[in-house]
Amino acid sequence: MKESESGWTEIEQKVARFAFEQAYKREIEALMSQVRHKIDTLDELDDIWQLHDFLSARRYEVEGKYDFKYSILLFIFAGLIKDGWLQLNELEGLDEDKLAKVAALSRM
Amino acid sequence: MKESESGWTEIEQKVARFAFEQAYKREIEALMSQVRHKIDTLDELDDIWQLHDFLSARRYEVEGKYDFKYSILLFIFAGLIKDGWLQLNELEGLDEDKLAKVAALSRM
Repeated sequence: MKESESGWTEIEQKVARFAFEQAYKREIEALMSQVRHKIDTLDELDDIWQLHDFLSARRYEVEGKYDFKYSILLFIFAGLIKDGWLQLNELEGLDEDKLAKVAALSRM
Repeated sequence: MKESESGWTEIEQKVARFAFEQAYKREIEALMSQVRHKIDTLDELDDIWQLHDFLSARRYEVEGKYDFKYSILLFIFAGLIKDGWLQLNELEGLDEDKLAKVAALSRM
């Protein structure tokens, strides 16, 4: 089993990538659902600019958050668990130390 | 009848304000209709960001255009007529000189 430069085995990399993509997919689906609901309820002139403000904020947040870098991945996973986009057991396959760190960080 | 500093009577100011608001309302309603249509094609994340880009561009354009200043109002009205958001006869109540200028500018 090859260790990546950053200390992640190949299996860990696969687990991490899959978990990351699952969380991303869930959050984006929730966002699409929110956007559809907002469009359905477009009523006043200001609603259109409120929709724009909402998209600006969410885009900034989502693009900032889903930055797949091994050096910060444990923090990212902890945040995703905290926000409900990921479950700790979906990270099974990572070593005990990484799992313990994510669990601890997610409770902070 | 009081003349405003900028050479618009009170009645002209009311006519101008009402026409301006009508045009804005029509343009935003058209924009809302376009956005509602886009909901049907929201499928991927990129569609959401494309909607965001679309709204950013339209907001920049609309907010730039609907800048109620008497010094540039005849140009604004001419542009709104040209783009179909306003009819010349909705400016009735402005003096002949202003109407003639708007009509001429709108044909340029």
